[in-house]
Amino acid sequence: MLERGSYLGRVKSLLAKLAEKGLKGAIILGSSNILYFTGTDAASALVVGEGGECILLASRLEYTRALDEAKVGAVYAYSELEAPTASYERVIRADLYGALRKALEELGLEPARVGVTVAQLSYKAYCRLKDALGGEPADVSPLVSGMRAVKSREELSLIMRAIEVAEASMKKVLSALERGVREYELAALAVSEIRARGAIPAFEPIVAFGEHAAHPHAKPGSRELREGDVVKVDLGAKVGGYCSDITRTAALGEPPQKLRSVLRAVVKAQEEAIHALTKSVAARDVDAKAREVMRSEGLLEYFIHGLGHGIGLDVHEAPSLSPGSRDMLEAGMVATVEPGVYIRGVGGVRVEDDVLVMEDGARVLSKLDKLLF
Amino acid sequence: MLERGSYLGRVKSLLAKLAEKGLKGAIILGSSNILYFTGTDAASALVVGEGGECILLASRLEYTRALDEAKVGAVYAYSELEAPTASYERVIRADLYGALRKALEELGLEPARVGVTVAQLSYKAYCRLKDALGGEPADVSPLVSGMRAVKSREELSLIMRAIEVAEASMKKVLSALERGVREYELAALAVSEIRARGAIPAFEPIVAFGEHAAHPHAKPGSRELREGDVVKVDLGAKVGGYCSDITRTAALGEPPQKLRSVLRAVVKAQEEAIHALTKSVAARDVDAKAREVMRSEGLLEYFIHGLGHGIGLDVHEAPSLSPGSRDMLEAGMVATVEPGVYIRGVGGVRVEDDVLVMEDGARVLSKLDKLLF
Repeated sequence: MLERGSYLGRVKSLLAKLAEKGLKGAIILGSSNILYFTGTDAASALVVGEGGECILLASRLEYTRALDEAKVGAVYAYSELEAPTASYERVIRADLYGALRKALEELGLEPARVGVTVAQLSYKAYCRLKDALGGEPADVSPLVSGMRAVKSREELSLIMRAIEVAEASMKKVLSALERGVREYELAALAVSEIRARGAIPAFEPIVAFGEHAAHPHAKPGSRELREGDVVKVDLGAKVGGYCSDITRTAALGEPPQKLRSVLRAVVKAQEEAIHALTKSVAARDVDAKAREVMRSEGLLEYFIHGLGHGIGLDVHEAPSLSPGSRDMLEAGMVATVEPGVYIRGVGGVRVEDDVLVMEDGARVLSKLDKLLF
Repeated sequence: MLERGSYLGRVKSLLAKLAEKGLKGAIILGSSNILYFTGTDAASALVVGEGGECILLASRLEYTRALDEAKVGAVYAYSELEAPTASYERVIRADLYGALRKALEELGLEPARVGVTVAQLSYKAYCRLKDALGGEPADVSPLVSGMRAVKSREELSLIMRAIEVAEASMKKVLSALERGVREYELAALAVSEIRARGAIPAFEPIVAFGEHAAHPHAKPGSRELREGDVVKVDLGAKVGGYCSDITRTAALGEPPQKLRSVLRAVVKAQEEAIHALTKSVAARDVDAKAREVMRSEGLLEYFIHGLGHGIGLDVHEAPSLSPGSRDMLEAGMVATVEPGVYIRGVGGVRVEDDVLVMEDGARVLSKLDKLLF
């Protein structure tokens, strides 16, 4: 999706960070991680050698897609089965773990000097990998998620486009509120607006009416919109692989008075958090700012999730803006700021924007009105 | 989604199967597994006691949705944080693993006598669970996936509805083929047709034109449809939680002669596989039937994936119809049968239908024409 040079630069930067840990190469697992370094998510693993040589290992099913999409690296298929293969396939006769061993050999890498992104591995996969490497792998998941968290200018421009699509789609959804419309109809509208702009949804949109909006992750159902309902809409688009994620809460007619004051408190919590958001601040301190506002408004018990999360190739990635987070903010990180209040039987309000961490403060990338009732 | 009685029956059946292994209870992890036994996917874990008592553990974020959706069980939130909670929340002050220990205590279950669905656990989660239980958990993932693989009448009727939606949507997509239309436009049409019928997509539809169809898992792009292109469309719907999954390959005008004969070979491979498909047959033998046809047609090297997979709450579940499968077919299983041929630089053909395993043979649940060129 990006130019070859961007991927080469990422691989080089990875090697420099590995070297600081005494590591000479890496096994990169997880489709978004592999996409980040190579431009394709079709491979099962990427092996990076000391000089920046890259080997991609793909199932036969995904081999030609990996070949066509990868901007860096040599692509091999792997298969345990004794079966005829096409003339254009380069097949390693082994399972993924056997193929990894061969790739390490080819690159002259000692297994003990190789970092592995372990975080997304299942227990069984971990055990097989450990056997293949002859020991516990050195986990470099935080190193890679830290790299991915800080966005380049070209990544930022894709995120901006994803935000534009999300905002235009949000406007269309909010202008379609009318008595009797169903949650799933507005969710369908959200998706078709996102797709009409050449993007795909970053996740299944959330559309929740009235008391249903008290579920932070409500699933759109057949509930009809009634006078006095709040309407919570959470949607995001993916453009060139990069995600946006925004939420607005509107209403049809006059919602309960309680929720009018809740909306104001939520917007205030968001503003104060964004005000605190800048380089070299602990992510949990930004979360704490929002929580402080909620406490003073008597709403803290209804703010039942973290304040936000990084966005990028994944819709949830580093940094985490939450009470338990250990992340430190860096310039170039992009994260959601999304305080919410959810009161069972009454309703819920969330306002979510996407924010870029700057050297001095934060830039709010999404711009839609917030005080919608 | 189903009646309470269905979930109670599943829990009872689980306990009977656990007892055969000397186990007295279970920790069920994985959202589709939890959904299967309780009617909600909002909880992080389900603990089942010897008498069928159920405890659901949910994050505070998902607690009220779990409360509203669960057809069986008592729901508790868990949270490590010291923070005020709403009057309606029942919060265990612990992380998930601490909460699991408390739930086991409450149900009087010895950790060593409890089965755990380990398959989807990450390595880190596994280690924390092992610590919480004081030893290696007994894996009951195959037991649960075996239960889920055999469908009840009501599950079958939801799958049938999901197939109807998929077929109606497929017809609309195939009737929209015209010069210049783009892959992503047809993918958007597929999604809007699925949603217009009150369903959601079971997965991102695949729409691939011409040489692009040589990628089994092509991602719809901006490629325009040209005269002589094949058009591969793979889509599925989700109705009441249950998935369908069908593929057709059509063409605009006259596709390459080679692909006309490929289509006939693929349909023949599918027919012979379905003919072999019945109760008490090894799933890999059904795959082998299709591979036999491909070999005799000189196409075996281009059939680069398994023949099919079970469908249900997940779009990929047991049984696996593939060369390495150890699954034995049982009456009531529902699976895809989807031979395909993919030739780099030329194109690809896949035909996929959903099939019910019967006492005596197989019933093909999807009915669209196959010889589309």
